[in-house]
Amino acid sequence: MASWLSIPAKSHFSLANIPFGVITTTKSNVPVPAIAIGDYALDLSAFTKNEGFTHLSSFQADVFHQSTLNAFAALGRPVHRQVREYLQAVFKADTPFPDVLKNNEKLQKEALIPLNTVTNHLPLQIGDYTDFYAGRNHAYNVGVLFRGPDNALQPNYNHLPVGYHGRASSIVVSGTPIIRPTGQILANPTATPKVPVFSPCKRLDIELEMAAFVSTSNKLGQPVPIEEAEDHIFGLVLMNDWSARDIQAWEYVPLGPFNAKNFATTISPWVVLIDALEPFRAQGLEPGNRDSLLPYLREKRPDNAYNIKLEFDIRHNGLSKEDAPIHVSDSNTTNLLYSFPQMLTHHTITGCNLRTGDLLGSGTISGKEPGTQGSLLEQTNGGKEPLTLADGKTKRIFLEDGDEVILRAVAGDVDGAYVGFGECVGRIEPAVTFNF
Amino acid sequence: MASWLSIPAKSHFSLANIPFGVITTTKSNVPVPAIAIGDYALDLSAFTKNEGFTHLSSFQADVFHQSTLNAFAALGRPVHRQVREYLQAVFKADTPFPDVLKNNEKLQKEALIPLNTVTNHLPLQIGDYTDFYAGRNHAYNVGVLFRGPDNALQPNYNHLPVGYHGRASSIVVSGTPIIRPTGQILANPTATPKVPVFSPCKRLDIELEMAAFVSTSNKLGQPVPIEEAEDHIFGLVLMNDWSARDIQAWEYVPLGPFNAKNFATTISPWVVLIDALEPFRAQGLEPGNRDSLLPYLREKRPDNAYNIKLEFDIRHNGLSKEDAPIHVSDSNTTNLLYSFPQMLTHHTITGCNLRTGDLLGSGTISGKEPGTQGSLLEQTNGGKEPLTLADGKTKRIFLEDGDEVILRAVAGDVDGAYVGFGECVGRIEPAVTFNF
Repeated sequence: MASWLSIPAKSHFSLANIPFGVITTTKSNVPVPAIAIGDYALDLSAFTKNEGFTHLSSFQADVFHQSTLNAFAALGRPVHRQVREYLQAVFKADTPFPDVLKNNEKLQKEALIPLNTVTNHLPLQIGDYTDFYAGRNHAYNVGVLFRGPDNALQPNYNHLPVGYHGRASSIVVSGTPIIRPTGQILANPTATPKVPVFSPCKRLDIELEMAAFVSTSNKLGQPVPIEEAEDHIFGLVLMNDWSARDIQAWEYVPLGPFNAKNFATTISPWVVLIDALEPFRAQGLEPGNRDSLLPYLREKRPDNAYNIKLEFDIRHNGLSKEDAPIHVSDSNTTNLLYSFPQMLTHHTITGCNLRTGDLLGSGTISGKEPGTQGSLLEQTNGGKEPLTLADGKTKRIFLEDGDEVILRAVAGDVDGAYVGFGECVGRIEPAVTFNF
Repeated sequence: MASWLSIPAKSHFSLANIPFGVITTTKSNVPVPAIAIGDYALDLSAFTKNEGFTHLSSFQADVFHQSTLNAFAALGRPVHRQVREYLQAVFKADTPFPDVLKNNEKLQKEALIPLNTVTNHLPLQIGDYTDFYAGRNHAYNVGVLFRGPDNALQPNYNHLPVGYHGRASSIVVSGTPIIRPTGQILANPTATPKVPVFSPCKRLDIELEMAAFVSTSNKLGQPVPIEEAEDHIFGLVLMNDWSARDIQAWEYVPLGPFNAKNFATTISPWVVLIDALEPFRAQGLEPGNRDSLLPYLREKRPDNAYNIKLEFDIRHNGLSKEDAPIHVSDSNTTNLLYSFPQMLTHHTITGCNLRTGDLLGSGTISGKEPGTQGSLLEQTNGGKEPLTLADGKTKRIFLEDGDEVILRAVAGDVDGAYVGFGECVGRIEPAVTFNF
């Protein structure tokens, strides 16, 4: 699909993508919905106001005058599909609607804004945030570190997508600085008795994840059947589930991680619609319809994952903003054992209600080989073996102040047709000083 | 303090209380803020509209035209204190403002509504919900069941208030029916290999808790010092943290309870302001300023708990609505090891931001003796010894369909001056039938 707009061949935001976000600009600090296309954002509020949706009369476009995408997401997948296809038609080289934007210089000037000048905001207001643990290689790797290879995975792991409730208030958009957390840690974990000290985290880690936004809600007491689950998903983003490993190790028994995760979680700003990912379906670690699953979790088709290439880089504190970051790890969403529809159905099976804007994280997505793992904990064998970065000299066990972490994700391998997520970035700032 | 309004001597809602909630009435389905006083609710929207706050000119009373108490809560403790004291003055027998309500029959008729005719709603919109585990006797009792008496409490327990993120969307107000959840359970936990079945929960339990609503927020990265923490608390409610013990036992490793708790949590409708509880301060299980705590958790005074009597009854499925429920258990909030300010400060110590309307649960509050425990799991020794109710014949291990659970809490022992929470009620409905 060619566009009349100049879109770089390697752009994550090709005409095949059309991801949705929320922006402010140098001219207005009122957040408005937008799509990313090539090197531009299209301000959907301005586009709507100027009759941009005139050829899609069924669509109640006033949802784009809101400051979040919740109202749009709540309209449901058929509407998202229609709007995305309409916007693709508007940008096509041979658009059937040249009057709308292609030949409308005034609207182009008002609504097409260079991406590198916009400020991104959280795309949806998030009600509840849940993080799963569906990356089996990660769960196995971490299990080996804590319990050895024989008991690495708990007995429930292959039967249900293990998950836990996370902290919604501290989810931030890519680019937000991450302040090193302070809390209780065991200075000497093997000493007896175990007495904690109050200290800045010394084992600050990243977790490379994908996350799904919920579009349409379900009522309390009414689980979502697996065959309907995908239609409750708006789209996906990249997520970095920052983790304070030393705080976690001390606090997590018996109720799970708490302070070790609640200080910040970063997501990428552009929501890639679930329909945009359909061409990239692939099988995950096992088929989604395998017999060993209880029927409520069995999907119709085996290829219930996506082939999305994942990677993370670190621009360490010895580099300047202009220096290229150093590549650290490659992974792929096929390293998930459970799909987002399976997570969503399992989440609701007891009757739990999901609301528009709820966020479901996948858990860390790791491969099996060195250099394919989604956390430093794994790459350093539990913090025991420093990792030498690709510059051949910089060593890291965990993150240092001033380190910047950059996650990326992209589906497709045809120039001009990438469906990508852009970047999910966070830079570590020093711990705050306490007077108490 | 006597009132010109007839307030029953045993009322939880004496002039010493003035708790805040949100109601609809038989005449209007628009939710409005209210206070409970004796057998009445005072509609604060109507009261405001009719110049009820005319003698408190500094107060921006339009917050009472909202459908939740969030805007009022966000104004902060000095305002809550002022408004509560003003309303006490309005209702006093020798009120300095007789024109406002005492001698204003028209407004009495419009705004004073019999409590038994109003419908209660969630008092605040809840952003994030966190549940702690600060009832040490409960933690110990459960620890004994799972790990034996020597390792009942984890090493972290006496150093920090253990907590985990809960599900906000499924928090419901007292009176909402509770549908028995369905999920994965181990039919035979000792069999090998462990293979789950899909089944309605067979071990449905209650957890008797108190919970605190957050009033003023803190910014991401800015912890709340312990000496400021109490001023971030709006007030307390009763809470029943319904728990599916069989689902929990299978799913909870390694990341904590998820589906076992996310189907419903019930709170009482009237928020008792933190100032109303000040006369009932008492020492908890240990002094709040003990040296063994890290300084960031040490409170100035030792009496950082409250003397609030707790109880729960069951109106079992053999009784009718008119029958009195059967008393099951008595406890007290002095059975907490940590105070709500300690929980709040610990929650933010890593920089986590709390928002107005966030809810912090205490964890189950149990005594040490039989008949003082806040869950059936404890009262039946892990489900092994059926409990004979006080009628001498009805036996329960866990809850049956049709059972109604009633929690109550009240501070004070002087007739006419009780500061109570009313009831927190939920009745178990049968599991939904699945076609999948």
